[in-house]
Amino acid sequence: MESSVIPGIWWVAPFASILALGFAIYFYRKMMGASEGNATMVEIAGHVREGAMAYLIRQYKVVALVFLALLIVLQILAFFGIQNPFVPFAFLTGGFFSGLCGFIGMKTATAASSRTAQGCSESLNRGLQVAFRSGAVMGLVVVGLGLLDICIWYWALDHLFYTPEHMASGVSFLGMTFVPENCTEVEKLVQITTTMITFGMGASTQALFARVGGGIYTKAADVGADLVGKVEAGIPEDDPRNPATIADNVGDNVGDVAGMGADLYESYCGSILATAALGAAVGAHHISKGSGTFEDAVGLVTAPMIVAGIGTLLSIIGMFMVRCKEGASQKNLLKALLTGTLGSSVLIVLALIGMWLGGLISGGVVLSVISGLVAGVIIGQATEYYTSDEYKPTQGIADQAVMGPATTIIDGLATGMYSAGIPVITIVVGIMCAFGFAGGTHDWSMGVYGIGFAAVGMLATLGITLATDAYGPIADNAGGNAEMSHLAPEVRERTDALDSLGNTTAATGKGFAIGSAALTALALLAAYIEEVKIWIAKLAGDGTFLGMSKLTAGDADIMFFVDKFELHIMNPLLLCGLFVGGMMAFVFCAMTMKAVGRAAGSMVEEVRRQFKEIPGIMEGTGKPDYASCVAISTKGAQKEMLVPSLLAIIVPVVTGLILGVPGVMGLLAGGLTTGFVLATMLNNAGGAWDNAKKYIERGHHGGKGSDAHKAGVVGDTVGDPCKDTSGPSLNILIKLMTMVSVVFTPVIVRFSPTIQEWFGFIDK
Amino acid sequence: MESSVIPGIWWVAPFASILALGFAIYFYRKMMGASEGNATMVEIAGHVREGAMAYLIRQYKVVALVFLALLIVLQILAFFGIQNPFVPFAFLTGGFFSGLCGFIGMKTATAASSRTAQGCSESLNRGLQVAFRSGAVMGLVVVGLGLLDICIWYWALDHLFYTPEHMASGVSFLGMTFVPENCTEVEKLVQITTTMITFGMGASTQALFARVGGGIYTKAADVGADLVGKVEAGIPEDDPRNPATIADNVGDNVGDVAGMGADLYESYCGSILATAALGAAVGAHHISKGSGTFEDAVGLVTAPMIVAGIGTLLSIIGMFMVRCKEGASQKNLLKALLTGTLGSSVLIVLALIGMWLGGLISGGVVLSVISGLVAGVIIGQATEYYTSDEYKPTQGIADQAVMGPATTIIDGLATGMYSAGIPVITIVVGIMCAFGFAGGTHDWSMGVYGIGFAAVGMLATLGITLATDAYGPIADNAGGNAEMSHLAPEVRERTDALDSLGNTTAATGKGFAIGSAALTALALLAAYIEEVKIWIAKLAGDGTFLGMSKLTAGDADIMFFVDKFELHIMNPLLLCGLFVGGMMAFVFCAMTMKAVGRAAGSMVEEVRRQFKEIPGIMEGTGKPDYASCVAISTKGAQKEMLVPSLLAIIVPVVTGLILGVPGVMGLLAGGLTTGFVLATMLNNAGGAWDNAKKYIERGHHGGKGSDAHKAGVVGDTVGDPCKDTSGPSLNILIKLMTMVSVVFTPVIVRFSPTIQEWFGFIDK
Repeated sequence: MESSVIPGIWWVAPFASILALGFAIYFYRKMMGASEGNATMVEIAGHVREGAMAYLIRQYKVVALVFLALLIVLQILAFFGIQNPFVPFAFLTGGFFSGLCGFIGMKTATAASSRTAQGCSESLNRGLQVAFRSGAVMGLVVVGLGLLDICIWYWALDHLFYTPEHMASGVSFLGMTFVPENCTEVEKLVQITTTMITFGMGASTQALFARVGGGIYTKAADVGADLVGKVEAGIPEDDPRNPATIADNVGDNVGDVAGMGADLYESYCGSILATAALGAAVGAHHISKGSGTFEDAVGLVTAPMIVAGIGTLLSIIGMFMVRCKEGASQKNLLKALLTGTLGSSVLIVLALIGMWLGGLISGGVVLSVISGLVAGVIIGQATEYYTSDEYKPTQGIADQAVMGPATTIIDGLATGMYSAGIPVITIVVGIMCAFGFAGGTHDWSMGVYGIGFAAVGMLATLGITLATDAYGPIADNAGGNAEMSHLAPEVRERTDALDSLGNTTAATGKGFAIGSAALTALALLAAYIEEVKIWIAKLAGDGTFLGMSKLTAGDADIMFFVDKFELHIMNPLLLCGLFVGGMMAFVFCAMTMKAVGRAAGSMVEEVRRQFKEIPGIMEGTGKPDYASCVAISTKGAQKEMLVPSLLAIIVPVVTGLILGVPGVMGLLAGGLTTGFVLATMLNNAGGAWDNAKKYIERGHHGGKGSDAHKAGVVGDTVGDPCKDTSGPSLNILIKLMTMVSVVFTPVIVRFSPTIQEWFGFIDK
Repeated sequence: MESSVIPGIWWVAPFASILALGFAIYFYRKMMGASEGNATMVEIAGHVREGAMAYLIRQYKVVALVFLALLIVLQILAFFGIQNPFVPFAFLTGGFFSGLCGFIGMKTATAASSRTAQGCSESLNRGLQVAFRSGAVMGLVVVGLGLLDICIWYWALDHLFYTPEHMASGVSFLGMTFVPENCTEVEKLVQITTTMITFGMGASTQALFARVGGGIYTKAADVGADLVGKVEAGIPEDDPRNPATIADNVGDNVGDVAGMGADLYESYCGSILATAALGAAVGAHHISKGSGTFEDAVGLVTAPMIVAGIGTLLSIIGMFMVRCKEGASQKNLLKALLTGTLGSSVLIVLALIGMWLGGLISGGVVLSVISGLVAGVIIGQATEYYTSDEYKPTQGIADQAVMGPATTIIDGLATGMYSAGIPVITIVVGIMCAFGFAGGTHDWSMGVYGIGFAAVGMLATLGITLATDAYGPIADNAGGNAEMSHLAPEVRERTDALDSLGNTTAATGKGFAIGSAALTALALLAAYIEEVKIWIAKLAGDGTFLGMSKLTAGDADIMFFVDKFELHIMNPLLLCGLFVGGMMAFVFCAMTMKAVGRAAGSMVEEVRRQFKEIPGIMEGTGKPDYASCVAISTKGAQKEMLVPSLLAIIVPVVTGLILGVPGVMGLLAGGLTTGFVLATMLNNAGGAWDNAKKYIERGHHGGKGSDAHKAGVVGDTVGDPCKDTSGPSLNILIKLMTMVSVVFTPVIVRFSPTIQEWFGFIDK
């Protein structure tokens, strides 16, 4: 144990993660103990559960094939000594745990819907308790599994691979040195943390499939159900006569629960891993300058894990703060939820201040985290402003609906584009503050560490914010169950109240999700450069780096190569990468949107067929074939998710091979900035259209059935794939492309100079 | 004359520009000599002409106020010695000539519409001749005035200001040295060319107002006319009973003729000026290294003007090649036009090869130009593929129209996003080739010169490509005139044939416009860095550059400051600039779209009012009040164009003051890449929706009046502001922001370090 770099307080992280999993089981049991309602409710919940599980199993089969293919590629790289031998395994575990989160979340959510409906038939508070506990299971599983995975890797690499013996004599594998001879303690830290980043690629890949597949499924079902059911047949939402209604409810689960869980699992892990890697780089830099000790470096690396651990504990405490008296009004409920989420945010700041006083982190980093948290809240409020029908933008769309669908769409598009303004300015100010407070003006790497830490701070209390996010779709499904089971109207009113409450808290959650994605991606970008430096140093040391025959292995030359020539903004390779990055965001969106269109098209045909061929379906005497609709959505989603997802993996590698490291940096920076703006636009436009329609339905501009309402429905339908498929998928795209780049760094560093020479881009 | 740097062959440029203006007068007289048709035709043309002129005068008044304000700002800067004293005057002339182009183009176009209609009532070929000649006036005026302005400035600065006496003893103004003592010949070249770039800002500002104002006008009138006339009242397009129909026809002129003319005038001047400035920088660099002579430098600076001059001569020759026999089919006509445009492109390549053989330019630069030309053709073909109803993408939108407006919109948005793929890859390959062929791998500045020259080459034959572009709206207006004058149906058929012919050549033209805008913006970006270096050197020499107290005035240190620390992609200031640039493109689009929505709203109300209040309007016995519709569009456009246009001027300055030079570089690079992708998406989505509607109208999916057609009309209406207001304006936005940055360089270089220190961004 003498080589251990792990300080005592680090153990709070694995402890908290195991505790989180324990409480997840506790909440799950509590929820399962609630009454499931009458036989119809049980039957409908069964249909949804079966559909969701069938979807998930099918999806995992397809994803497993993709993982197998990528695993073979990574194994080949490892076998030829191009990439680290841990990488394939790390990739697998990242994907596996992410998938497990989705599975558990889905199992909980589908079990909870009928129980929430039953709870609501008793009281609003009872319904909230069941729904919120189910959300809590999801939140705790995500942070528990994520943090546990990170902790196990960190411990195992430290204790099993980087042993004092290995570090003294070095470890080689097929001629490639992984633990160099006389590896110093700080080199060990750098290598462990950069190796661990690669495990994020597995989580990202799984998350992208979950988001894209789930997004296509849910919107194909939704659009299909709406177009034929609501618009053509004129029956209300969630009407059991609509054959697509079960598929629609399954869709809420696969998109909003499984998709969102995988998404945030990946953000959570990504921010911790990137920050730890940056911490190691900062530590090594300080030691080489004589301005820091090895203990400082260990502190920088373990700090994000410790903060995540403390945040997890605070989340659990926050969950028990979400309680209210029987007969509580909706205002009380909102207050209860906000107490939980905002309370944990305040507590995490206090905990950070405590860590600062204890000398574990610098005061500047605490201010960085506060910058990130404030940025997240502002983005959330801006989202709320642009998408809630209490404010002018959404009401303006409803006003335009009076003139027909065309003006509704134009105004919605413009509102979405407009809404990118505040979030971008907020994130820019947030980045500058996080960078500056952490000391970036003296020490660039410390500033970037601060940016990473801001993301870690924002996501530290993910346990509870995800709980308030995930309970929304559960309440939505409960409403569907209540409608289809013909429960009393006040039950539906209560589930609607829970649902709308969820929308309010979700706005804040969305702000944190987007903000943390941008900050995480930035930190990953910086970590990518560290990875590039390591590999260039390795290859230059071996004399195998073709484009660098002029250079020695000296650090100064490598820095020159990486910093000056390569990553200058006017390097045409980098500029071209910027163009490709911006394009990727758009083409990726186009693919997912087209996919929704195609999948929805098959659904529309199927629903029309059933209305025509099954007798008595509209009178309620004939039973629609729910299963065939579920099968069509499942098949469509599987078929359609493959190409866009693979594109996200292939483009960074191809760009890297042709345009080299600067091209990759351009791709990632362009993808990040354009992707962030485009995602904000699509999410907010979709949200605003949705709420403009609801605003009209509540009696404005002629209410339901008026021409304005029809125009509103068109807007809502256009917005569906924007806000639930393309927009959220972009969030993952920008991170996955970075992760892929990190993993394939040695390939790019080794082969791109040859290819570029061949193209004549590099002149030796 | 002994200080003259102007070689003899340079005189081809002013000669060609004057010749072009002479031929413009010749074509104008030829066109005016044609018969104007019967009294109704004359009357209708008169209405349109009056409306257009009223609009233009009002617009110029507003723009004059903006120019006055900017002039005061620039004069203050000049007075305090912060900016060069030529700049305010250069700014004014740029704006004035641009406005003059718009005015002449508009005067020609409005005179030509009735004459084209009359020509079409005689024969198709006769109509083509009149319309094409009017387009030729526009094309020749733009290149003639643009090139003449550049030549006069170049000659005047060379002969009147940088005289041998001034260069020997230096010229100061309020303590600021403009012609330094013992100014060398090459320093003179660098200073003249960078000063001239600032004249592009006037042209850009005028162009943005023309595009945004014209775009808002034309689409407000169009959307207003369509929504009430076509959709509600069910009367066909250009029906004289529709009160908005004259405003609609005026709109075609102010948007497509005046707007496009100003747009391309600015691209044309921008590409020549940026390339000349880069040529001077390359020359100075080579001389300082001992690898080039002063004559080489002069050659590099004058080459773009010479190529533009030769291109102008070739355009005039090309115009006389556009002829065909009486009774020619549409295929013959297309062939005639293509002979003119493609013929000139081939000729310009031959001319360049001639210049290479004559030792005026390098063979690499010729290959750069060919790369640019090929890229332009490919982008044009891709535009054609995505927007013509002969191909799958547009037909796919028509297919989706069967399911209603929502799926039509989703598919159109996706098609637009998708369509960014090929243009981006093309431009990326084009940039790499232009950079590489010119020798960028050995010599970065030479590579960027090649990129600039590719744009110059693409725009060299602008005279004729603009002629084929500008004749489209003239044919469109002729159709309107024919319809309103109740001419025989075959006249309308012929004008429609001309119009659709124009659409085909316009696709190629659009490819050149977007491609050259991207290349020009890139060249301007490089020229901006040169400008920054000059001012930093000046201020560091004066000891006034606050953030650089550590540095001496030595060239190496300045290079270090500019290249390494500041413009590294991971400089957070630059990254923040990237975010802001991406956002700017979206917010600017949102503003222009919202403006169209608001202006169209007032138009809809007015048309509805007239239908209700004027008796007998639908029966054709009551006369609609055309003038009030024209007045509403004019007022709306003036009110709405101000904020987005000013934003484009203010944002680069504010960004520069807060985020400094790296922030500006990020802003410009982000705006360029995101803007290019977004503009391509909006242009192509709009074009595809338009043609999908026409495809349905030709009898597919139920033809006119079917539900699919209604959905198609919704798509077309949504696409209108995309393709005619927001998309084309983005083209100018990305160039104007760069021009503004160039002009305000000394302000940014002088004050931003102080501000950044105050914010704590810079740590001395």
